[in-house]
Amino acid sequence: MEKIVGPNFDNDISISDLVESMQKVGFQATHLGNAIEILRKIKEDNAFLFLTFTSNMTSSGLREIFAWLCKEKIVNVLITTVGSVEEDLMKSFGDFYAGHSKVNDAELRDRGLNRIYNILVPNERYEAFEKFMEKFLEKIYEKQKKEGKQISPSELFFELGKEIKDDISILHWATKNKIPIFCPAITDGSFGVALMMAKEKHKDFGIDVVADTKKIYEITTEKQENGEDKKTAAIILGGGVPKHHAILFNSLKGGLDFAIYITTASPESGSLSGAPPEEAMSWGKVKENAAFTSVKGDATILFTLLAYCMKDIWKK
Amino acid sequence: MEKIVGPNFDNDISISDLVESMQKVGFQATHLGNAIEILRKIKEDNAFLFLTFTSNMTSSGLREIFAWLCKEKIVNVLITTVGSVEEDLMKSFGDFYAGHSKVNDAELRDRGLNRIYNILVPNERYEAFEKFMEKFLEKIYEKQKKEGKQISPSELFFELGKEIKDDISILHWATKNKIPIFCPAITDGSFGVALMMAKEKHKDFGIDVVADTKKIYEITTEKQENGEDKKTAAIILGGGVPKHHAILFNSLKGGLDFAIYITTASPESGSLSGAPPEEAMSWGKVKENAAFTSVKGDATILFTLLAYCMKDIWKK
Amino acid sequence: MEKIVGPNFDNDISISDLVESMQKVGFQATHLGNAIEILRKIKEDNAFLFLTFTSNMTSSGLREIFAWLCKEKIVNVLITTVGSVEEDLMKSFGDFYAGHSKVNDAELRDRGLNRIYNILVPNERYEAFEKFMEKFLEKIYEKQKKEGKQISPSELFFELGKEIKDDISILHWATKNKIPIFCPAITDGSFGVALMMAKEKHKDFGIDVVADTKKIYEITTEKQENGEDKKTAAIILGGGVPKHHAILFNSLKGGLDFAIYITTASPESGSLSGAPPEEAMSWGKVKENAAFTSVKGDATILFTLLAYCMKDIWKK
Amino acid sequence: MEKIVGPNFDNDISISDLVESMQKVGFQATHLGNAIEILRKIKEDNAFLFLTFTSNMTSSGLREIFAWLCKEKIVNVLITTVGSVEEDLMKSFGDFYAGHSKVNDAELRDRGLNRIYNILVPNERYEAFEKFMEKFLEKIYEKQKKEGKQISPSELFFELGKEIKDDISILHWATKNKIPIFCPAITDGSFGVALMMAKEKHKDFGIDVVADTKKIYEITTEKQENGEDKKTAAIILGGGVPKHHAILFNSLKGGLDFAIYITTASPESGSLSGAPPEEAMSWGKVKENAAFTSVKGDATILFTLLAYCMKDIWKK
Repeated sequence: MEKIVGPNFDNDISISDLVESMQKVGFQATHLGNAIEILRKIKEDNAFLFLTFTSNMTSSGLREIFAWLCKEKIVNVLITTVGSVEEDLMKSFGDFYAGHSKVNDAELRDRGLNRIYNILVPNERYEAFEKFMEKFLEKIYEKQKKEGKQISPSELFFELGKEIKDDISILHWATKNKIPIFCPAITDGSFGVALMMAKEKHKDFGIDVVADTKKIYEITTEKQENGEDKKTAAIILGGGVPKHHAILFNSLKGGLDFAIYITTASPESGSLSGAPPEEAMSWGKVKENAAFTSVKGDATILFTLLAYCMKDIWKK
Repeated sequence: MEKIVGPNFDNDISISDLVESMQKVGFQATHLGNAIEILRKIKEDNAFLFLTFTSNMTSSGLREIFAWLCKEKIVNVLITTVGSVEEDLMKSFGDFYAGHSKVNDAELRDRGLNRIYNILVPNERYEAFEKFMEKFLEKIYEKQKKEGKQISPSELFFELGKEIKDDISILHWATKNKIPIFCPAITDGSFGVALMMAKEKHKDFGIDVVADTKKIYEITTEKQENGEDKKTAAIILGGGVPKHHAILFNSLKGGLDFAIYITTASPESGSLSGAPPEEAMSWGKVKENAAFTSVKGDATILFTLLAYCMKDIWKK
Repeated sequence: MEKIVGPNFDNDISISDLVESMQKVGFQATHLGNAIEILRKIKEDNAFLFLTFTSNMTSSGLREIFAWLCKEKIVNVLITTVGSVEEDLMKSFGDFYAGHSKVNDAELRDRGLNRIYNILVPNERYEAFEKFMEKFLEKIYEKQKKEGKQISPSELFFELGKEIKDDISILHWATKNKIPIFCPAITDGSFGVALMMAKEKHKDFGIDVVADTKKIYEITTEKQENGEDKKTAAIILGGGVPKHHAILFNSLKGGLDFAIYITTASPESGSLSGAPPEEAMSWGKVKENAAFTSVKGDATILFTLLAYCMKDIWKK
Repeated sequence: MEKIVGPNFDNDISISDLVESMQKVGFQATHLGNAIEILRKIKEDNAFLFLTFTSNMTSSGLREIFAWLCKEKIVNVLITTVGSVEEDLMKSFGDFYAGHSKVNDAELRDRGLNRIYNILVPNERYEAFEKFMEKFLEKIYEKQKKEGKQISPSELFFELGKEIKDDISILHWATKNKIPIFCPAITDGSFGVALMMAKEKHKDFGIDVVADTKKIYEITTEKQENGEDKKTAAIILGGGVPKHHAILFNSLKGGLDFAIYITTASPESGSLSGAPPEEAMSWGKVKENAAFTSVKGDATILFTLLAYCMKDIWKK
């Protein structure tokens, strides 16, 4: 058994070394420290890496980290909610702001500020988004007509990425590096409203959501050159549909080989968001011999730390 | 100011009376007690009622309560994740079982039992589901070909409800009483895999997800006979895409008039799942003068209590 | 395996029957329903029953329930924090009020209202408490001098209960029915400040906290008439020192035979407050073959429900 | 308004710089980043610094950090539960070990391992503790007899620190640097059992807990040389009695000037553990114009980060 001991305070220490030393601290520090070992194995085994996150994380400064992971080609697939796509785009038009959670929300409403806990999104961002989408979906409709087939969500986001010049955008780098973005709930959010309005103009406009199931299936289950299954890994930030989509499609290849969960949700209410990797094992979504960890806490802190560690690991 | 006082223990008391007396107990009891008053107003104002829930709640015994609310026509719209549709169907084929959360999940895997916290789903349910879906989607494809247009998710679930004879099924009663079920992430889950396989057979098979955005928009924003906006209410159990979909489309009519949230999620990480009604106010998703409450806790307990209260309120 | 099924909605149902039927609902409803079975065994086995709670619960309307449990002699020992003693006393002088959690706390301060989430305590209650305590501790000091020995916390509370005429007071009924109240942190809170001021007047004034360790030890470990260990049970609401004190002293008799935990705390940070009964088993604080359940949620709702069930069980 | 933006990934960055840059990330990252600013003000204003923590943190590797803060004289007062004192002592005798939370606890019991989430404490540590305490309390009793007065908890811990040679012990450095340790619940835990046994031998043995109320009162309220109130600050890790004791005694001087809370508890159940700094403001425990932040999450990660930042700030 390893002894429990605090990190060294005598010398200066890098972020990676600190996180690694947390393995011996106990409680969630240990769970976070364990992630380093798993990340190293993911890199060594050249595992195919899924990153899933919810849209509030794109509202936060994690957006730049997700973009960087795409830029550096460290991740292979993104799965998220449609709010992430909306907000990545909006942030290319202008900023979101730091606010407070204890405020008068009726007052914010009058000031045209939409609150996400302590982050504020000015109405202007949504207006710019709507204007942009109107034109963009017109183009997509033209493409649909020309090609005689509906576009799938991941193809739509690929086209969207081409439009964005902002080099700290997730969409920009995902498109540039051909990293598919899956979003099983594309009609939710303002994106859905934009789609509704496009269809209002063009009755035959549609999105082929089923096409993406085949695409993610093939990506997940494709064999290595030697005919063996490839190893798959997932970093799952928060819960919801993105988390489920990743583990579900991995179950079709026998389960994830590596899983790192970061979540604030608890398992006791049976929600998928709070379900630990062990539970996924009963479903064959995570392999019985998988390396996994689940860290309870806010991804804005925990994943920022891990991303710095990934930088060190992948740069070697 | 109202005084804080415990409930009366001298006499017998009905469930509704107990929940009502909780208003004076403080903390979450007060929040739960407040829901009674809001439910009464919803009934009095004949508000249009959205019910949203996540699929784990359908895994639980809340399924029968949801079905009962549809049977009694107390709710007007359901929004959920696709797992709810799958599991309501599966439960028509056979039972789910009570288990434990502290178990060996690898062992469960070997025994063909899939775990959702302390609920177990035998593999046989999924097998029956897959077999059923293969035939059912064949019919849907025939319908698509005949009508020359793709079916939307809510239309698909309407058809599905026709197939189910089980009279404690959500789908059965929703179809019978024309209560639409919206599901913005239809390609997630085993349902998504079934859709993928149908498309594998019929390349031109598809689901028109955008059509449902218009449908939910019209339902939400339609005027009363007197030309005024109708009042809308939402009971939101848990978070995720169903919650967001309900409040988003209500923002297009100026916000919800009544909102009851039951959730285990906390707001501090900025997740939509944990966002309180006040936050939704800054977005115009809940009206500034709305009557609302948010109760923290597990819906299997809290909504069971509220459903009994609804029975009393609606029966009057 | 038991099947998962919702409660019956066709007939009227008592609170006990509803809670019992929750066993089959899954998630926390199952954990709550399990408590009924354990309560029945506690009653049948005539187990010695510890009730522990934190002071915020006495701030709430649970105070009247705790008093009722003492009046009915259903519980044998109370363990709590000193705030509970203070507030039970204060409530005999006047009311606490229902407020809101989203308020301007600086404004409340100006209005002389102290906030406990959504419960408000007027400054006047504290003023009355201080005035009362000054006189009361003078009496206690006289007693100390007369008897030549310091009083222990549980003896002090016994004396305190004699002073209270309010027949919905915990202290009143605990004294009347000789139910000891243990409080391992008597110097915390306004009570501690009152003790400090008493000692300021009388340098030799003191409280014999160590005496209560022996008292709780003897109560916990005393044998039955037949020489066998008596069975012990604990209902543990929330965490903190009261929880630990109960399970620690029970470990000295081989562990609790029955344990019902109700808590909002999670285990992941290693806090005692969130530690599940299983963890206590490794310490011998809960027996390996104990009947136990842990329900996650707010005691103002959950324990109110269980208390109604206890009424039914104990009345039979 | 400040814009939301992720941290810089192009260059290497120190731990302090990373934590500082988190201010702009949103959600809990912002709350953590805010702590840096508050820590700088605490240092600049030479504020009197309280550190409170629960015993599970001493079980973890934070123990070495707490010891280091005492060694460096960065903190002025410690308030904790008695388990911290026990475990600091035990760790001087031998190690605690890293384990897992999903284990068979009955099996651990048989192996003589006591579990605190994922930390294991061998029975041998407790045996060594008991043996040590028996002798130590004999000495304390001798001292009591010689001096004709009972010892207070903080004086007892001061004596205890003299016995410990381990230079990564909290007690060792607290004694060496005359940093008082307050513990309002000294009779809880194995410490309480040891006190009980000492009193069993010597009926007149006792601990003067009331004396410590005066001591903490004087320390907290003592004026600066210029006659003004000194500024006070508190870093509050977790909740419970230690948290309450710190803020209560600070209310007697008009409230804390600076407060940093790190907790996993939520406010909704009204527990003191989850009560935010704003709530304390209504009580006058935190000043209306105080600088404060509350970070939700596990202290093993979050306080480790902050402690590195404190190192940088205090070394300047």
